[in-house]
Order: sequence, then structure tokens, then C-alpha cells
Amino acid sequence: MSDYKIILPESEIPTHWYNIAADLDEPFAAVLAPNGQPATADDLSAIFPDALIEQEMSTERWIEIPDPVREVYKLWRPTPLFRAHRLEQRLGTPAKIYYKNESSSAAGSHKPNSALPQAYYNKQSGRTRLTTETGAGQWGSSIAWAGQMFGLEVMVYMVKVSYDQKPFRRSMMHTWGAEVVASPSDLTAAGRAQLAINPDTSGSLGMAISEAVEDAASRADSSYTLGSVLNHVLLHQTIIGQEAIKQFELAGDYPDVIFAPCGGGSNFAGVAFPFLADKAAGKSVELVAVEPSSCPSLTRGHFAYDFGDTAGLTPMMLMYTLGHDFVPPGIHAGGLRYHGTAPQLAQLVERDLIKAVAVDQIPTFEAGVIFAQTEGIIPAPESNHAIRAAIDEALRCKESGEEKTIFFNLSGHGHFDMFSYDRYFSGELEDYPLPQSAIDEALEHLPKT
Amino acid sequence: MSDYKIILPESEIPTHWYNIAADLDEPFAAVLAPNGQPATADDLSAIFPDALIEQEMSTERWIEIPDPVREVYKLWRPTPLFRAHRLEQRLGTPAKIYYKNESSSAAGSHKPNSALPQAYYNKQSGRTRLTTETGAGQWGSSIAWAGQMFGLEVMVYMVKVSYDQKPFRRSMMHTWGAEVVASPSDLTAAGRAQLAINPDTSGSLGMAISEAVEDAASRADSSYTLGSVLNHVLLHQTIIGQEAIKQFELAGDYPDVIFAPCGGGSNFAGVAFPFLADKAAGKSVELVAVEPSSCPSLTRGHFAYDFGDTAGLTPMMLMYTLGHDFVPPGIHAGGLRYHGTAPQLAQLVERDLIKAVAVDQIPTFEAGVIFAQTEGIIPAPESNHAIRAAIDEALRCKESGEEKTIFFNLSGHGHFDMFSYDRYFSGELEDYPLPQSAIDEALEHLPKT
Repeated sequence: MSDYKIILPESEIPTHWYNIAADLDEPFAAVLAPNGQPATADDLSAIFPDALIEQEMSTERWIEIPDPVREVYKLWRPTPLFRAHRLEQRLGTPAKIYYKNESSSAAGSHKPNSALPQAYYNKQSGRTRLTTETGAGQWGSSIAWAGQMFGLEVMVYMVKVSYDQKPFRRSMMHTWGAEVVASPSDLTAAGRAQLAINPDTSGSLGMAISEAVEDAASRADSSYTLGSVLNHVLLHQTIIGQEAIKQFELAGDYPDVIFAPCGGGSNFAGVAFPFLADKAAGKSVELVAVEPSSCPSLTRGHFAYDFGDTAGLTPMMLMYTLGHDFVPPGIHAGGLRYHGTAPQLAQLVERDLIKAVAVDQIPTFEAGVIFAQTEGIIPAPESNHAIRAAIDEALRCKESGEEKTIFFNLSGHGHFDMFSYDRYFSGELEDYPLPQSAIDEALEHLPKT
Repeated sequence: MSDYKIILPESEIPTHWYNIAADLDEPFAAVLAPNGQPATADDLSAIFPDALIEQEMSTERWIEIPDPVREVYKLWRPTPLFRAHRLEQRLGTPAKIYYKNESSSAAGSHKPNSALPQAYYNKQSGRTRLTTETGAGQWGSSIAWAGQMFGLEVMVYMVKVSYDQKPFRRSMMHTWGAEVVASPSDLTAAGRAQLAINPDTSGSLGMAISEAVEDAASRADSSYTLGSVLNHVLLHQTIIGQEAIKQFELAGDYPDVIFAPCGGGSNFAGVAFPFLADKAAGKSVELVAVEPSSCPSLTRGHFAYDFGDTAGLTPMMLMYTLGHDFVPPGIHAGGLRYHGTAPQLAQLVERDLIKAVAVDQIPTFEAGVIFAQTEGIIPAPESNHAIRAAIDEALRCKESGEEKTIFFNLSGHGHFDMFSYDRYFSGELEDYPLPQSAIDEALEHLPKT
């Protein structure tokens, strides 16, 4: 049997991030400040260093990766591209299935790809401390590790329900030297106000963002960091797709269809954008973002300006949204529980360059177990969404006899999500089909621009 | 900076296991049956397939790895050899530090290296079901996965205290299709007898072995599997050292000293034995087994015939032992809580071909945190023992100015051991220096041969 892993040497770690903003027929829509005017660098400088603001607004095609960042990437990158021979055999499909293993980072997902440069540029700017929020804990872990790599203090506001239910993600952040507090906390005005109203609240991602932003804005030594949605985060993730293109060359193959899970959109964009450049150059490839049916922003949301956070503190961005105050059902793929999507990604979906599908929770776990039982790695609940879609495609090929090449991104492992697998095995998981009324209602909550 | 990872292609996975029994001036001492006579293949055939019994007794130098086993090895092997640049920098040592990352298997440790061939040979022999015991859960996870790979049912007797305290290792085994019961259980006579005496017992590894052996012996379709100690298990692990030798050639370097954690001895032997063959051929290399000071069989135990299990069901083996009824203190490196050592390893220590050192628990966690904060990966508590010894050696080099090449085996990751890290950070961990009286007392419990 041919190789399972297509591996590149460290010298093949990309030297530049790919900026899709350089390659559009029509530019992305402007981000709007609270006054309704296009946001400026000044609007962002209180919480981000200049280098990241430049990347956020850049239309340069290639942005050089600083050497110290590439040095840390070398600890686990390039990540292997796997040919999923055993999964193919189990399914009895004529399709070929490949996956990129982004779970092989220390933090267990693709998130360090952006956490590291964010830490680096902040260090360069003279700041000594990072703040962030975390829900499921993947991003908090990654920024904790990145802070440790570049010598920055890290303060993580962790949604209280996760703080209580996922103590081992918390331990991981402690091991890398970060401070972790349950949000809402009494450390910020936003947190204290929330606690005064509802002392027993279990917190929310929106609340934790408010605390992390307030903390960073109130201290000259601190910056806020975000793990998805923003242009510079998507930019940093493009090393995934760039590596994959080289690996498919080595394999003598090329994907017909690519799946990646989609919440905020950073891992999907990281895989898809370099292939989209290929597509613009004439290659034939279908790009499919896979989202939960309980939080179907791309497939059923409104294409409109909305805030990135629940409290409405961020600038307004043109995206697919379920409304910034939409509270997604309690699915276990915490990383996909986001009301909107990265504006770049949303606008490419709107232009029909990228497709989207939604899948139910229970079938995603079924797919994850099939994957674990064939390929070994136990996937994160987020990744199970891409696996579900890839398996469905492979089964369609079995029906039709097509020998498609299917590629998906294994964005993370599930070692800190076994509680969710337990609930799947014991039959306690639910699907949450979203009633149309909830989506209609969101229209009334969109900000006026 | 030079490469971090030295990676071999899949074609360089060893084609044979290395059998050290072929290369001795003086053969290993015989294993003794209950009657005091050398044990025969017949004594083992109730619970092991013929192929494994042959390997247990073989003096052939190279034993071919079956293709179907090498095919599964390809899912994660060869494992990378890392140059620990960042750890060296943190320590300010002139020494070079390398580690082999055996944590990269699906189960998270080196254990699948033997679980897979054990499952394979059982399948070949026509058996359809495997039994085993597990304490920390590393071995149980590996045999669960191996059973899934080769289409065998798996029954794991998990020490009750672990069953309750490490639910996520249990979930992992379920995901790979294994049945897991708390031991003692009411499924075996041994378990029922124990429960009758003490219904609230938290169980023990010795008890769980008794149940797994009784289960396998009582059913024609079932075999018992063991994760360490036996010759064939050590044999299977020698792919670690063989790969490392090739990787050091690529790096243009060679270790002066090698450290690996040592409980039963399989991961240590897997690294050390191929280098010992090099040493016999004239290379200069020091091999050091690192054990916990709370369970110091190699450094303070008796060199004598003893049973492999608490209940005295196994044949008697010549080993370093603290007495088969010794109950090690409750350290968090569950994989090192074993009263004895693999007889092959013990006899090589006795012949001064291998050294041993013992380290306290708290300094091992301190070392693990330094490693996590520099190299990223959070190590298993067992692996922290090797890291402690490697760091101590590197610090000695800093004092002396020596530019030694230090190599250790990172036998597993700590993703399912974060509770132990929490206890370290909160100051709840203890060291357990063992009083000499406990060791003296063991003399009275050794079997008469």
C-alpha cells in the first residue's frame, strides 16, 4: 500500500502568509466604526499593535512570516497530510480521502498558527501582556503557549461554565504559565456589572470578550487577542492550505472537493484560501465550509452588517449572521458556537466562490467514531463536522462510482472532549434544528448602518 | 538554527525487531514454573498464542515484523527525533539534548508498538477476544485500539480507583470499541472473592491481572495480553531504538548518555537494547533507567526470583524486586508503580551493562513543566522521570563545560494526567522516600525456588 503520511521538511514551512484580499475582482466591504464610517487604524490601536492592524487592512498578496515565528512553527510544522486508507476501506468507497493533521500542535489544534504571530508582534511592539477570552479552551491554550514562547504574560477570561466543566484545559493553560479566571469576574467593570445583576450566571463568550477587551484597553502594557473572524487571523492560518498544495504535488494528486469545519472561519479559510487562488488560476476544486445545523450562519443567516461580539463593542462587519445576541444551543463543538462568520469568508460565500453545508450534531459524533476506529486519532467535536461531510461525499461516490479526491482538515484532537463522546455513547446528545422564527427574529436585532 | 525534527520516511520503519537474547555472553536465567522447573511453552499456551510464546523464548537476533503490523505502524511511525533547542537555551547548557517523541501515537504513548503485534498474532491464531488489565489506562487504551485495528473484541479490567478517577481514559477505550469494567468485578471468581471480603475495595493492579488472566484462561476464544515485563513486549519496543540510531546518523551525532523512564521496563528496553548492541560493537554510550524513588526496584531492590504479579499466578522470574506484594505509594506516574522489573532488563543491570537512578516525584513535575514551557508538549508523569534525569545531566554539563549529547525517550503525553499537574501546582504532591525497613521486609516475602 502506498504511503499514509505525506511529510514536508522544515525548510518547506511557508515563508509568507497568503492574503486573499490581493486577489479579488471586487474588494471586501469596509468595516464600519460605531459612527457608521469606515473604521481606521486609530479605531483599533488601543487594543492591537500596529503590525497586526496593518495586516488587517493590507491588500499585499504575500506577507513575510518573521523568522522567530517560523522557528516556533518548526516544533510541529509542516503538519502531515494523511491518506486515509483505512477510512476508505471501511466505507468501501472508490473515492480517495486525505486529511491534514492540524491536531499535532502542542495545544492540539490549528489555533497556534495565529497565536504565535500575535504574541510575536505584540512583543515587538513593546507590550508585555496579552488578554483573551476562551470558551472551549482551544484558543486560550494556544495563546497561553504562544505567550510562553515569546515571554509575555497572558490573562485568559474563560466562560464560567467551561471553567467549571473543562478543568483540564485550564490546567494546560496554567502549565504554560497563563492566569485563568472564570468570566464574569470581579476584575472588570463589565464583569462586576454582570455579577451584580446575576451572581449565578454561567457566563458567555460575549461577556468574556467584553472583559478581555476592557482589560486590554485599560492597560498600556496589554493587548487583546482574538482567535478567529479577523482578517489577520485568517491570514496566519493560510500556511495550512499552502502546505497542503505542496503535499498534494508530492502525492501526485489534487482535491476535487475540500471540507473544513466552520465557526468563526479561521481554520476553514486557512485551508481554503490558497486553493481558491489555485481555482482563480484555472484549477477545478470545490470548497465547502461545514457548520452545525444548530448555528447555521452561512446556510440560513442574514447577509448584513453586524457586530462581532454579543455586547456590540466591536466595529460592524458585513457577514452572514444569526444576530449578535443569538445564543447558540449547547452543542459540544464549542468552537463552532458563533453567531456570525469571518467577513472575508462570508463575502466569498455570497459571491458563490465557497459553498456551505450544515450538519446535525449526532451524525458528526458518529462520523468521529468511525474516523477514530479506522485512522486512530480521536477528533475534536468541531473537526467531526468536516469528517461527517467528507464521509457523506465518499458514500455518494460509492453510489455513483466516482473516484473523487476528497480532502478535509482535521483541525484538532478530542483529548479534552471525551466527556462529549461519553454523552454520545450514552445517548444523551441531541440535535437542535433551528426554527425559522429564530432566524427571522434576528433581523430585528441587526444594527442600523 | 538547525532542524528541530529528524524525520524518517515510512520505508525506514524497521522490518525486524531486535532480540537482545541473541547477543549475550551468558544467557538470561530461566523462567521457573510453580514446581521450580524451567517453564515450558505448554505452561503459557492457555493464555498466549504460539507465535508470542516463540518470541518469548527465542534467541534469534532479528525477528521479522509482519507486514500488516508495519502497515498500522505507518499511521504514526517512524516517530520524530527532536533536537530540544529551546530546552537547551532555557538551561544554558553546552550539552545537546535530543528526545524521541513516542507520545505521537493515537493512544498517546509507546504502548501500541507492542499492543498491535499482540493483537495481530492473536487474530492469526484464531482467537477473537483479548483481555487485559490497566491501571493508568495507557496500556488498556493501546490494546483497545489494537483490537479495533485487527478486528478483535477487547475486555479491559481497569483498577477501580482509576476507573473512577480517570473516566476519560475509559471513554477513549469505549471509542475504540473495548468493554471496560471496574476491577474487582463480579465477572470472575477472583473478583467475586475479593468483593466478598471487601466490597468497598479500590482495587489493585495485581487484582486486575488476576481477573484478566482468569477470564482468558477460562475461554478458548480469548488471550491475555500484557503491556510490559515479558521478553516479547520488550522485543516489540526495540523499533524505538532502531529508528533513533538511524536518526542520529542523519543528524551526524550520537548520544553519550540515554535516559528513559522505567517501570516494568518496556519503553526503556525499547530505546536501550539497540544501542546496547552498538555498545557491544565498540560504541561508547551510557544507558540509564530512571525510576521513582518511591518504588526503587533497580536501585534498592533484591536481585532474586519473584512473581510478576501480586497474587503469585505468573511464573517466577529473576529480577530486581521489592517483593510481589509490595504496594507502591500513590505517585501519579501510575505506569511506574510496579514492584519488579522486566527480567531481561534486571539481569543487564546486574551485569553492569545498564545503570539505574531514582528520582523524587516533585522534581519530576518541575522538570515536566520546564519541558512543556520550552518544547510545548505536556509530558506524561512517567516521562517526567527521564526528563528530570536529562535536565540534571545537562545542568552537570553546564557546571563542567562538557558538550555531551543527551538523549531521552518521551514515552507519552500528559493530556489525560492534567489532574496530576493541578496537584503539583497547588502544592499537594508529596515525595515518598522509602524506608530501608520496607525493603528489608520484602526479603521475607520472596518465593522459595
